[in-house]
Amino acid sequence: MRIVVLAGGIGGARFLLGVRAHAAEVGADITAVVNVGDDAWMHGVRICPDLDSVMYTLGGAADPERGWGRAGESWTVKSELAAYGAEPTWFGLGDKDLATHLVRTRMLNAGYPLSAVTEALCARWQPGVRLLPATDDRLETHAVAELPDGRRAVHFQEWWVRYRAEVPTERFVFVGAESAKPAPGVLDALAGADLVLVAPSNPVVSIAPILAVPGLRDALTAAAAPVVGVSPIIGGAPVRGMADKCLAVVGVPCTAEGVGGLYGARAEGGILDAYLVDSSDEGARVPGLAVRAAPLWMTDERATAAMVAAAVDLAGARG
Amino acid sequence: MRIVVLAGGIGGARFLLGVRAHAAEVGADITAVVNVGDDAWMHGVRICPDLDSVMYTLGGAADPERGWGRAGESWTVKSELAAYGAEPTWFGLGDKDLATHLVRTRMLNAGYPLSAVTEALCARWQPGVRLLPATDDRLETHAVAELPDGRRAVHFQEWWVRYRAEVPTERFVFVGAESAKPAPGVLDALAGADLVLVAPSNPVVSIAPILAVPGLRDALTAAAAPVVGVSPIIGGAPVRGMADKCLAVVGVPCTAEGVGGLYGARAEGGILDAYLVDSSDEGARVPGLAVRAAPLWMTDERATAAMVAAAVDLAGARG
Repeated sequence: MRIVVLAGGIGGARFLLGVRAHAAEVGADITAVVNVGDDAWMHGVRICPDLDSVMYTLGGAADPERGWGRAGESWTVKSELAAYGAEPTWFGLGDKDLATHLVRTRMLNAGYPLSAVTEALCARWQPGVRLLPATDDRLETHAVAELPDGRRAVHFQEWWVRYRAEVPTERFVFVGAESAKPAPGVLDALAGADLVLVAPSNPVVSIAPILAVPGLRDALTAAAAPVVGVSPIIGGAPVRGMADKCLAVVGVPCTAEGVGGLYGARAEGGILDAYLVDSSDEGARVPGLAVRAAPLWMTDERATAAMVAAAVDLAGARG
Repeated sequence: MRIVVLAGGIGGARFLLGVRAHAAEVGADITAVVNVGDDAWMHGVRICPDLDSVMYTLGGAADPERGWGRAGESWTVKSELAAYGAEPTWFGLGDKDLATHLVRTRMLNAGYPLSAVTEALCARWQPGVRLLPATDDRLETHAVAELPDGRRAVHFQEWWVRYRAEVPTERFVFVGAESAKPAPGVLDALAGADLVLVAPSNPVVSIAPILAVPGLRDALTAAAAPVVGVSPIIGGAPVRGMADKCLAVVGVPCTAEGVGGLYGARAEGGILDAYLVDSSDEGARVPGLAVRAAPLWMTDERATAAMVAAAVDLAGARG
């Protein structure tokens, strides 16, 4: 069985822990297609927050409390950069994490595509999942927003980390998306999948930038496999992060139904066939989608694996 | 009084502490023209060992025991890079130090010349001395040597740090020297100097690459100011480092007289007018040079300042 998962950062990473645990039971191989819209240059190194969150989490090296970055992290370089007055000072650049960025930057500058760099980094972390960036090309999420300093647009990282999503925001733009191509392996993975899962990641800034890669959304809608989404919203609030603020920007209610409607049914031009919502959202309805409820709190790997099993079961019921 | 000092790394840095202390007493401003031949790209960042040794030492931030790098240093990034298998693993890349390299690399990649980068970094360290790289252009010292892996040439850093200067070595080459230009300010500093001091740095791989910048040696030999050299060899052994091994490569005896002869008298095509040797080398003779003996152990700033005073006095005696 071949499972493809569209995933963002921390939510996607934790969901993939459950997918991997489930796959170990049933014998499946997993390809994760990961958002790169958060990627940014900081202090001259290339940061890929979502790929790293997935890689560290699956590699058992993620900080369990913070969610992002490495466990046992130190911040010496960050504090020295601040002593030089080097911007940005608001970005959490850990010492351990920085080594990843240095290796990646050096390989990128030597001409390796991000997919090859990711594979090389994963040789250390052995995530047990094939990690593919959605694209090897530059695709960055920017917010069109009113910044305190008068700017009218800002990289998503700055919008999110520095401004905590608390500036008047008109919309998100995926810079470079028009000319981006799916990374090698992405289209084949979708075409050959037995099941596609959309992780409970931020639909607006994690899943949407993946789908913004030309050809990728078409490959998803044309896939023979059932596509099952998992709601990132439980009882009207995001499982974690600030999906509520992102959903508000695009005018979508912060509810399981709202996100389901944003994704839409494949039969009607959307991307899903079925949709798993939390037990507390039982009774949710999304036109054209088979909706089922199950516990969606990813409290531990076992709970997450059970939630994945429910999504797999829902896919089978639909088929 | 305007003093120009030609300097390499640790020996040059400690000597400059004494020059600064002496200058504070007599009211002089100091320009240090620093070797860049040790500079290298490591892990995608630009390392300038000599400029940094001088900057950290004069900024009160150098590790007093190791001599190079920052006091209170940690090595998290280095050990993480090694865990990725990223080469080189033999290079001592400290976490605090790395912040300097990141700021420098970012500025270099943005198009700033090394001299401007150095000035920006010094805004933090306030060395009390104007630090100028000998050149803004790429000039790297390589050793033509028989490496264990079959290579026949190697960057000086690798020759020095990884191979401890213990491979059969034919000669040193200053890669890029032919097309290098003196950094802005270097020629003017030499032309306007009241005194030029050649620090007790490694003559073969610290001072020679400075003089290899076309136009720089000519400016030195044409300078109106007296040029006084300070011997880096005391009683037949280098004050620190491996100058003996470098001198052996160029066939010069590891003695105060040997180095004095290598520099030579300005009147005879060399670069010095006078030469200060250690008290234990009293009686040393170098054709064409006024030679005087004084204690040259740079045990502390006061001892070093006294040694600088002796060099200044020697310059006056000659004039």
